[in-house]
Amino acid sequence: MTPYDDTNIFARILRGEIPSQRVYEDAETIAFMDVMPQGPGHLLVLPKTPSRNMLDADPAVLARLIAIVQKLARAAKLAFAADGVTIMQFNEPAAGQTVFHLHFHIIPRFEGEPLHPHTGSMEKPEILAENADRVRAALNTK
Amino acid sequence: MTPYDDTNIFARILRGEIPSQRVYEDAETIAFMDVMPQGPGHLLVLPKTPSRNMLDADPAVLARLIAIVQKLARAAKLAFAADGVTIMQFNEPAAGQTVFHLHFHIIPRFEGEPLHPHTGSMEKPEILAENADRVRAALNTK
Repeated sequence: MTPYDDTNIFARILRGEIPSQRVYEDAETIAFMDVMPQGPGHLLVLPKTPSRNMLDADPAVLARLIAIVQKLARAAKLAFAADGVTIMQFNEPAAGQTVFHLHFHIIPRFEGEPLHPHTGSMEKPEILAENADRVRAALNTK
Repeated sequence: MTPYDDTNIFARILRGEIPSQRVYEDAETIAFMDVMPQGPGHLLVLPKTPSRNMLDADPAVLARLIAIVQKLARAAKLAFAADGVTIMQFNEPAAGQTVFHLHFHIIPRFEGEPLHPHTGSMEKPEILAENADRVRAALNTK
């Protein structure tokens, strides 16, 4: 197992060195909008505790993390009036992992709308900000 | 939220009405080979407690389930000498859910090998049995 490298972009977001559109934060967890969304409202949820991915994670960290994944999946469905929610978690490059700090993808889904590919093109900051507002509002209505 | 319907195929597997290639079982959890794998060694992990998907699941059930997902992700990577592991969990048909009992997909991944589509064609029973043996052996080496 490759060791954790704290220069990854999510570690830098956690340290506040890079901005993000945060929708949720507690002592152990953070969630923000994916800047290259595979669909409107695509969120990322990650533990503050460093681990490369699920393979080297502390099970106690995972147990707390999945509760927040659930909370945000419900909020994202509500926020975007989605028909469903896809949850994905990638371990190692062969599985599609590109940032090596454990994270779950939460993607609101709509009937007849396939997932967009990860094109590498950035969403407009104002769209990300508006989507983050919608998720925060949905979290507050529960 | 549509209520849980206990005639779904995973409920029938849990009741022993339909066979499966089981690789893991404890008081709360079961894991077996996906009969329409998107790659070699594609596993499913589900709680015995009924819920339609993650949106209506008990957080305490989810917390225990994710620990087993982790254990099986590690075992599957080892069993198939995989380069990575993709974990997916689908909520509602728009997200790709086809069986309405909460489950996580664990798919060993290999460099340069894309995920196979869910074609609807069944894997040969002897291949599923052999793959299940490999996962069980990997669980026992830990």
